[in-house]
Formats: sequence, C-alpha cells, structure tokens
Amino acid sequence: MSQPNPTTTGTVSLVGGGPGDPELLTVKARRLLDEADIVFHDNLVGNGVVESIPERTAVENVGKRPDGERTPQAEINDLLVREARAGRDVVRLKGGDPTVFGRGGEEAEHLARHGVPFEFVPGVTSAIAAPSAAGVPPTHRDHASALAVVTGHEDPAKPDSAIDWDALASIVSAGGTLVVLMGVGRLPDNVAALAESGVGRETPVAMVERATLPGERTVTGTLDTIVERARRADIEPPAVTVVGDVVGVRETVAHCLSGGASELGPASPAAASAEDEIEVNHQ
Amino acid sequence: MSQPNPTTTGTVSLVGGGPGDPELLTVKARRLLDEADIVFHDNLVGNGVVESIPERTAVENVGKRPDGERTPQAEINDLLVREARAGRDVVRLKGGDPTVFGRGGEEAEHLARHGVPFEFVPGVTSAIAAPSAAGVPPTHRDHASALAVVTGHEDPAKPDSAIDWDALASIVSAGGTLVVLMGVGRLPDNVAALAESGVGRETPVAMVERATLPGERTVTGTLDTIVERARRADIEPPAVTVVGDVVGVRETVAHCLSGGASELGPASPAAASAEDEIEVNHQ
Repeated sequence: MSQPNPTTTGTVSLVGGGPGDPELLTVKARRLLDEADIVFHDNLVGNGVVESIPERTAVENVGKRPDGERTPQAEINDLLVREARAGRDVVRLKGGDPTVFGRGGEEAEHLARHGVPFEFVPGVTSAIAAPSAAGVPPTHRDHASALAVVTGHEDPAKPDSAIDWDALASIVSAGGTLVVLMGVGRLPDNVAALAESGVGRETPVAMVERATLPGERTVTGTLDTIVERARRADIEPPAVTVVGDVVGVRETVAHCLSGGASELGPASPAAASAEDEIEVNHQ
Repeated sequence: MSQPNPTTTGTVSLVGGGPGDPELLTVKARRLLDEADIVFHDNLVGNGVVESIPERTAVENVGKRPDGERTPQAEINDLLVREARAGRDVVRLKGGDPTVFGRGGEEAEHLARHGVPFEFVPGVTSAIAAPSAAGVPPTHRDHASALAVVTGHEDPAKPDSAIDWDALASIVSAGGTLVVLMGVGRLPDNVAALAESGVGRETPVAMVERATLPGERTVTGTLDTIVERARRADIEPPAVTVVGDVVGVRETVAHCLSGGASELGPASPAAASAEDEIEVNHQ
C-alpha cells in the first residue's frame, strides 16, 4: 500500500483470483493484494481469498450491491477509472483468470480509453483446476488433442446463440475435451445440444462442485446419465462440467489423489470405487 | 524439506510452473518448491523458476539428458516412483499447467498404478497468460464465446491427425478464439489447414514469443500475413499463437498495458501503433 497521490494516476491490476483455494493465487496476485490501496472483487472470488486481504485495505464487493442486484458493468468501469485517477493502486480481483469469461477485456478497453495504466495478472482458471482437482487431466496423450472452454449459461436454443455446439461436439467426438463453466442451470439444455450434435450418449461426463474449496464434490456419469445424477446429488453452482474420454482417467487415479480441498484431506478410496451410483465424493 | 523416511512413501506433486515469470507461480507451487526433497523439471519451465529453487534441494532436468536426447517418459515415470518410495517428497515441475499438454495425466496414472500418492497442483497456462500479456483477452463478450486450445506441432496433413481443424475453424468463424501452443515450426501448415477449413484470410492473428519473460515479443497480422511476418521477425519457440477477433483488442489497450515482462516495463505506445508492418514489440 503506497500513500495515494492524486497527482499521479494509479495502476489498475486486473488480477486472477484463481479457482478458490487461496494457495492457488499467484505469488504476484498475493503481492498485489497485500500492497493495494483498494480491491474490487466479484462473487466468483473465493471467500478465503477475500478474507486474506489485509485489514487496512479497502475492499468492495462489486458482484452484488446492497439491494441484491449485480453492479452494472458501466458503474464498475467508472469506479476503476475514478480510483486510479485519485492516485490509488487498484486491484480488480476476479475468479479464475481475468480474461477468461471475466470481462477483463472490457474493463481494460475502458481503462485504456481513459488513459489509465493497467495490467492483466493471469490466474489459474477453474476450467483447468476443477477437472484436475477431481483427477481429470483436461488433456491426455491417449485421448484429448484439443481442449475447448465455453460458458454454459446461455440458452443453446436461442437463435442467435454465439456458441457453435456442432463444433464443440466435433471436438469431443474426435477425442477432445469440452469444459463448460457456469453450466449448472442449463445442464439439461447443454447436454441435449451436444447429443443432437452427435456426441455419443456413453461419452463420460464429470461435474466438479466447489473445486479446490472445502466441501468439493464430484459426480460422474455419461452424457446419458449426468443430468439425473447431478439432480440427485443436488449439484449447485459454482460447478464445472467436463465432457470427454479424459473423465475416465479419474477411475485409474482417484485412489491415490491427494490435495484438492486441502483442509479435508485426500479423496477417499471408497468414493473412487463408488458403490453409490451417484458417485459423489465428499473430499 | 523433510527428513526422507524410507518406511513411508513420499508424495509426488505434479506442479504447474506457470508461463515463465517466477511471480506467476502459485503460492502453493512456491511452497512445495521450497519444501521439496527433489525436483524434476522439463525444458518448458522458465529459467527464473528453476533458479528460484533453494540450493539445498536436488534438482534434475529431465527434459534433456546429457546426450541431448529427451528423457524417455517411461524413465521419468520410474524415477518418480523410485524417489517417492525412498520416502522423498517429490515435485514434478512442468511449464504452464501439468494437465494441459504436459503429460501430467500419464504420470498420474503410472503413480496410481504403483500406489504412490500424488496431487495435481494447477498452474497458470501459457494458453491464457501469453495472449493476455500481449493485451489480447482470450475471451471477450463482444467476440469470443468459446476458447479452444491445441498443440501445433503435429502435422495437420497426417491422415491420422487427432486434431479436427474443421471444428477449430468453426469456432473461430463463430467469433471464438483458437490458441495454438508450440506452433512455431508448423505455423505455415496450421495456417493453411485453418484457411482450407474456411477461416477468413483477414482473421486477426498474434504470436507471442517468450511471454511473461524478459524479451517478450509480439507480432500481429492476419491469417494471410502472419507466416511472413513471423518469418521476418524471426519468431522462435517458445511462442503462442492466437487466432480470432479478440486479437483486435490489443490495438485499443496496448498503449496503457503495463506488466508482461515486468523487468522491461510497459509495451511502448509507438509499437502499438505500429508503423513497422512487422509490428514487433520489444517490451
């Protein structure tokens, strides 16, 4: 934290907060959070990360206003410019990586149009960390030659949907991996879109809820069964969905997998061999 | 570093070393490197990261043997098992993230088959960090609804190529982003494969060499011009190629972009407005 200097414009650091576990912040993100004058974060940042910010630092959740509404993006943009122009070093903290479905690009454009210096500080994306926490490597030489990442909260039946489900289905059918972020609410629609585009009903699917956080859970199934299994396990946001042959790696490795939600210890071997058809692992 | 205990099997941590800048290690990776008994790393890990490992720690580069050959994967697998069984805490350090084109999945399978406890420690992948270091957000609400990542060192003309270039081309044509890792050598082939699959010749392309490291350079162009521009700029591995409309964001933001190769300061505004058609930015 430096002494704010209103004659010099501060820098806005658009910082990745990682998947949730505060130890998965980068060293640079840790340093910037420790040095910032003010931090604006959204709801996808892990509580442990927010709680790790020094007490002396101003912290504002712009994910949700007191009235329960999301802060409009234009308002966030203006806040960042105003604080930087007041000479403050600003951290704009986002879940995962700031440039992957995090509007970091939009905020950067706004800052640059107003002459405010900024930097992107990349973070560990949940698109990779969530599968791997569950023992699913997003790529594997025997399976996945391509990795595709989309957000799942858009209606795939919408005529102007910007997501090309046929292309994603082709990637999965060729042995690649599809990761869907924020896809709990529209899981049935997205699964139907993939099936209609030719993804086999037996293709393995995993959903990882609260990845890298205490209480992380994984449910596995196939394109045919995942909707029912997720419903029975009551999977809630935030959760990441992985579609592709790599999901099968979990069966081989889960009994030796440590880490993940580190407070709760290793995945239990019993859960990995899954007598329960829902195959929920309480780590 | 604990006292090795041959009666207890050590843990193998498959750790992401990030894109190159040692500050882009995670806090957890930093801690594991500081505590490890032995570290096996490959050539894609940044020199600064390797040099940051404490002197007391055994460090072995398994990327290249003294005879100049790559260590066979089977030999690396056996090394990891042997060291863990000797009671040592082992860090297997890989560039980027260990599960994204890093063979972390294969090593995990080998460890699990031999009953050795392991964990994946996710890292910042160059697939995201390299574009963002150059001012290119891999996704953007106005452009990219999907992000696809492939490795580019496979011959796209090979009949059994596992990469579905038609699917990747569809993602780009729908406004999405394609990131090609390790694609310098086969750039002309990959560009031709995308063009044949229908990606427009005017689609923006950027290549980022040595992203997040001192001497980072970016060259931009279109699908039509990038091969010649990369050749004239003498772009060498490691470099990451980004294809898609998001590349255009760089023009708006580069003059305010700090960070990247932090030792060398911000991208120069002159380079961003690029009188030189090669548009190389010496950061």
